[in-house]
Amino acid sequence: MKSYFKVHPWKVIEEGFDPQYNEVAESVFAIGNGMMGQRANLEESYSGHTLQGTYVGGVYYPDKTRVGWWKNGYPEYFAKVINSTYWSGIVLKINHELVDLNNATIHQFYRELDMFNGVLNRRSTITLNNGIEVTIESTRFYSLINKEYSALRYRVKTNQNCEVSLTNYLDGDISNKDSNYDEQFWLEESQESTSNELHLLVRTKKLDWLLATSCVAQFFLDGEAFSPEPQHSVKSKYAESTYSFSLSGGHEFVFVKHVISASNFNHPNDAVLIHAKNAVKKMASSTFESHLEMSSKAWNEKWNNHDVVVEGDDAAQQAVRFNIYHLNQTYCGDDPRLNIGPKGFTGEKYGGSTYWDTEAYCLPFYLVSSHSSISKQLLVYRYKQLDKAIENAAKLGFNKGAALYPMVTMNGEECHNEWEITFEEIHRNGAIAYAIYNYIEHTGDRTYLAEGGLEVLLGISRFWAQRVHWNNRKQRYEMHGVTGPNEYENNVNNNWYTSYIAMWCLKYTKEATEFLQSKFPQIFAEIGRKTSFDAASELQKWEHIMQYMYLPFDEQEQVYVQHDGFLDKELIPVNDLPAVDRPLNQKWSWDRILRSVYIKQADVLQGLYFFEDDFDIEAHKRNFLFYEPFTVHESSLSPCVHSILAAKIGEFDKAYEMYLRTARLDLDNYNNDTEDGLHITSMAGSYLSIVQGFGGLRIKNQHLQLSPNLPKEWKKYAFKILYHNQPVNIEVSEKQICISNLGESPIEFSLYDQPHHLGAAQTHVFTR
Amino acid sequence: MKSYFKVHPWKVIEEGFDPQYNEVAESVFAIGNGMMGQRANLEESYSGHTLQGTYVGGVYYPDKTRVGWWKNGYPEYFAKVINSTYWSGIVLKINHELVDLNNATIHQFYRELDMFNGVLNRRSTITLNNGIEVTIESTRFYSLINKEYSALRYRVKTNQNCEVSLTNYLDGDISNKDSNYDEQFWLEESQESTSNELHLLVRTKKLDWLLATSCVAQFFLDGEAFSPEPQHSVKSKYAESTYSFSLSGGHEFVFVKHVISASNFNHPNDAVLIHAKNAVKKMASSTFESHLEMSSKAWNEKWNNHDVVVEGDDAAQQAVRFNIYHLNQTYCGDDPRLNIGPKGFTGEKYGGSTYWDTEAYCLPFYLVSSHSSISKQLLVYRYKQLDKAIENAAKLGFNKGAALYPMVTMNGEECHNEWEITFEEIHRNGAIAYAIYNYIEHTGDRTYLAEGGLEVLLGISRFWAQRVHWNNRKQRYEMHGVTGPNEYENNVNNNWYTSYIAMWCLKYTKEATEFLQSKFPQIFAEIGRKTSFDAASELQKWEHIMQYMYLPFDEQEQVYVQHDGFLDKELIPVNDLPAVDRPLNQKWSWDRILRSVYIKQADVLQGLYFFEDDFDIEAHKRNFLFYEPFTVHESSLSPCVHSILAAKIGEFDKAYEMYLRTARLDLDNYNNDTEDGLHITSMAGSYLSIVQGFGGLRIKNQHLQLSPNLPKEWKKYAFKILYHNQPVNIEVSEKQICISNLGESPIEFSLYDQPHHLGAAQTHVFTR
Repeated sequence: MKSYFKVHPWKVIEEGFDPQYNEVAESVFAIGNGMMGQRANLEESYSGHTLQGTYVGGVYYPDKTRVGWWKNGYPEYFAKVINSTYWSGIVLKINHELVDLNNATIHQFYRELDMFNGVLNRRSTITLNNGIEVTIESTRFYSLINKEYSALRYRVKTNQNCEVSLTNYLDGDISNKDSNYDEQFWLEESQESTSNELHLLVRTKKLDWLLATSCVAQFFLDGEAFSPEPQHSVKSKYAESTYSFSLSGGHEFVFVKHVISASNFNHPNDAVLIHAKNAVKKMASSTFESHLEMSSKAWNEKWNNHDVVVEGDDAAQQAVRFNIYHLNQTYCGDDPRLNIGPKGFTGEKYGGSTYWDTEAYCLPFYLVSSHSSISKQLLVYRYKQLDKAIENAAKLGFNKGAALYPMVTMNGEECHNEWEITFEEIHRNGAIAYAIYNYIEHTGDRTYLAEGGLEVLLGISRFWAQRVHWNNRKQRYEMHGVTGPNEYENNVNNNWYTSYIAMWCLKYTKEATEFLQSKFPQIFAEIGRKTSFDAASELQKWEHIMQYMYLPFDEQEQVYVQHDGFLDKELIPVNDLPAVDRPLNQKWSWDRILRSVYIKQADVLQGLYFFEDDFDIEAHKRNFLFYEPFTVHESSLSPCVHSILAAKIGEFDKAYEMYLRTARLDLDNYNNDTEDGLHITSMAGSYLSIVQGFGGLRIKNQHLQLSPNLPKEWKKYAFKILYHNQPVNIEVSEKQICISNLGESPIEFSLYDQPHHLGAAQTHVFTR
Repeated sequence: MKSYFKVHPWKVIEEGFDPQYNEVAESVFAIGNGMMGQRANLEESYSGHTLQGTYVGGVYYPDKTRVGWWKNGYPEYFAKVINSTYWSGIVLKINHELVDLNNATIHQFYRELDMFNGVLNRRSTITLNNGIEVTIESTRFYSLINKEYSALRYRVKTNQNCEVSLTNYLDGDISNKDSNYDEQFWLEESQESTSNELHLLVRTKKLDWLLATSCVAQFFLDGEAFSPEPQHSVKSKYAESTYSFSLSGGHEFVFVKHVISASNFNHPNDAVLIHAKNAVKKMASSTFESHLEMSSKAWNEKWNNHDVVVEGDDAAQQAVRFNIYHLNQTYCGDDPRLNIGPKGFTGEKYGGSTYWDTEAYCLPFYLVSSHSSISKQLLVYRYKQLDKAIENAAKLGFNKGAALYPMVTMNGEECHNEWEITFEEIHRNGAIAYAIYNYIEHTGDRTYLAEGGLEVLLGISRFWAQRVHWNNRKQRYEMHGVTGPNEYENNVNNNWYTSYIAMWCLKYTKEATEFLQSKFPQIFAEIGRKTSFDAASELQKWEHIMQYMYLPFDEQEQVYVQHDGFLDKELIPVNDLPAVDRPLNQKWSWDRILRSVYIKQADVLQGLYFFEDDFDIEAHKRNFLFYEPFTVHESSLSPCVHSILAAKIGEFDKAYEMYLRTARLDLDNYNNDTEDGLHITSMAGSYLSIVQGFGGLRIKNQHLQLSPNLPKEWKKYAFKILYHNQPVNIEVSEKQICISNLGESPIEFSLYDQPHHLGAAQTHVFTR
């Protein structure tokens, strides 16, 4: 698989068509605008392997849970990403022969994802079985301006005179490959095919999501508009118009499809279809090209705020932009009800859309790369789901407003049912509190505590205060039955990371209450009433826990102990394992993995990453050098944290090695699963490896700190960030570091712990 | 539900028909002969709730596994108990009205399970909607003589002249309620309806099990044979004959159905149907009554060997006989390929048929109650599956002939897929070794070691030797990632019971090798070659493990510790829990159960029960008094072990309390799940509570030890056992103990540790 796609600084390129990579390419070339998106399915019919996927943010389906053995506390339904109306398809026949790349001779195939402009282009030349040579050029995009608009331009040229039949259709009769009971999720509402328009309204079987898709078709012949007469046809959940006309050899016709996808996520039920109909007509009154230009401009501006440049390593350059591109096409902070799904709009695998990845990996990306309002939406998302988190905790026996956020969710309800994860991988709750802290560190926006932050923190801290128990024999608090970030161990006692973040939550919540109490006493009183917060007794209890919480530490190794019993294992480093045993998750039975010392992703080290200022550099080194050799990095989220920490402790080779393991994960299909969709959230980790790792960037107490180093494989790298919402460019080369304040206000920052000042529009060059 | 069935020393009686108990009654009244069996479905049509179930031993289906989240090592298919051709149904119409108890006025309904004779009787009088009063008397049994034969006698009387239509049918178009993908398991082969015979041959979709069912119908009118002319009809997997005739009011007709069910479990493929046809004709040449009489006699003889008499407590009397009856109808040791399913022939729930229950609870029942050849079959069953157990272990990464017997199985392959059970509840392996030891203790048949016993022991010990690991920091062997018998804790380290039984296996296997080496050197050499057993190095390794194995013990409480971390829990006794929290498995989320101290069934105490001679009575007391208060007994297998141990340490009230919790589990439908089938294996536990608990019976080194006590609620109890394959009766009353040697050879035994001798046919009375 390696190097199937061509390297280019701004593009991902496929030259030549290999059907066995078609589904991988469909994932890699996916496009979207943060509100909706689509896999790169070929427009015309394709009889080879393909995974059709078109997704509209916020529209989901509560699929009935399928489990082997039921456990009390499991949810009955899971919100599932729902594959929806397929708008970009056409049926093309030339002299009655179906155009199908799987049944033709392909002379040329070129596909590119133009990341700078956010557009998907394809050019293919084929000879049909009837001998006619056909050249197709298609261009498709989702508008970054009108978030309900997407469009296709499809150019066709033949080498001889022929009869063309082109069927334009909207297909709402869509199945989810990933449905638990082969159930179809969509019901018919209405379908219409009239003049050059198609309109489809479908409804989900449950929850009554309505999705209207309206399209206007346009034809051009040799650059001139022309109007072949369509034949209309509809059936349940499907509408089409078929256009038949003659095409002279060497001439080109262009088919343009303007599409609006609108749902009752954003419109009243009875307005959804009408809105779509009106909006598409309005959009069709401007050209495809003008819409594309506006959208491209918006993409260009995004890049202007957070591009990363790598010189001397084209593959790395392409990779980091690929990751930034997909993070942006997945989430733009448009709506606090949306979040960052593990596959974004590139696949339907996994129920739910929100993991702790959002807070631990994605939020830091948006915090340094985007306007603070975008990050805030991610916080508000959790605030809006606080009631559900409280319900979720109540279901597990917690009370008094304790909140447990789900492991995986769409609408706040749990979408996962492995007991060792669902009920035990509770450190996620800590990450959600940490995100509030992190946001305030970057933005200084402590008023968010009054707007919802404190309520979330209270729910989370109340959960921790109930989740620990008093070990009377040892006179200390312990936390049993947890699964740390290392999912290769389950149901352990006193996982250091979980206990540490729990303690930290209590401490931070206490500080937050004190802040609100002093700065916003009235709001604090309101929140107290709303949440029945008994400050005196609850804070006293938390103090007691903080004082007596057990955090395992090993005197011999001078390291924090991952959990009770970890050091009782067979302590053989990963490098001493036979190569045939790797990856463990494919080669070993589950019990063997669990019993082993091998770590899937940062666990103790995740704690050091989050709370680095609590530990000195020697503690960082000891723990890193102890744990990393046992770490197999079989989670796509593992290498980035290790890369950042390795850079911090000066292990630059290790930092680069770790960086390489995520950067091209999907581009090179390392895990052989890119066909299911992309690993969106781990893309943020790969970005952070550069910016926080090599760049040594931190923003603490709204102050920018930098301590860059340059991987010896690179000549130079540069990254733009938004600091106090204004752009700053940091360029690191062998001899110098060049920092440019691109904004209109002066900035303060530290470089290698030395404070500096930089005026508006100023650049300063530091010699390394 | 309590007391729905009437108390009677030898019968279970239902008086009056309550449709909501119909499925419970179908389970309770089930009949079988150890080779096949059936739920007590009503013969005529019934439109109310019913769970039809007819099962043929050995015939199973590999149902595709359904899991939520796949783990490496899970099996793809599970053997499932298969519901098969329904032979006992008829369709009865009186003046064209269907007889259906759900659509008639019931005047009288009486159903009894006659346990002494192994027969199911029913009498009902109803008035149809057309005003005709109908009295039905049915009698059904599975022959204990011809294990392929079952029969029905169905008497009908009406209060006025009427037209009768009776359809006799065989229905092979049967679904499993419990199939994972609603798949039908049976395919058509052939069906035939001719003269008074019906013949059906069906085949399973997978594995090609063939089941032939042949029946001969007979009619009698007022005691005389008569021959109404049948109308024949067949369709796929179904054959019927309909008989129409006039019946005068006050007269009685009798319909008799002789049935042979034969499968390729016992016959060559091409002989199955022919055999069934011939056999049924032969059986039909004798009367229903004569077959019933012979079968009853065989049942009477069984009772003669292992009846338990309780005086002064009719409910207890009925209960213990109910349990003995069902154990006998489930398993008679006919075939080493059969075993004791958790629901026997009374339901289809749960895949597979064999749990460690067989070795831990059922085998001890058969060892004291039945000829030693029956117990031996249970050992041979596991020997025959040794190859599969070795494959199973290999799948999990073990090698060199290590064997892990499955948690649940039919044919030796694993039928369970919860990782914490399938991969971790490995103490089951120990129970299988213990069964060999236990069998030899009872029978003295050490030659079984040469016949297969040693090979099984070797496989099991090799597994343990690989499953432990060396804790280098603590210089000891540990066993991580196990689930003990207490399934309310999963994935723990150093479960005392598991580690103890593992050690014991190594020790016993070592002894067994030494025995064979000295007594059967040639066989030992052969086994060594066959298993590549390297005695010197393997035994040395085992010695090292035995020397350095970690077995957690708490100095403060002076008890064995259930596992690392158990004493770090919140140690609140069950009695201090609010009543609303019980049973925990319904009221608490799974994680809360796991984190709690509460024990589902004997864990450390299971070890004390198995290896009682390794521990003094004070250790028994300390451990019992420490662990029992944390035990919720939410497994039907829990109370019996506690009852036996409580009796041993003189806690007689506790012993009786525990006895009561299992004795009438199904008769009184305590767990509200009797409709799914009976809890067959726990029935053995209830028997052992009396014989080993109150009776204090042990057979060690082929020597009978007794130390009876009498529950104060009882006047007297007695139990017959087979000791050295001859019957002995032990009768315990307030003042005396009466022991009768009913056999033809003298016996030696101990009573309260005093040795005694009893000649053939002698009785000795001891004053208490």
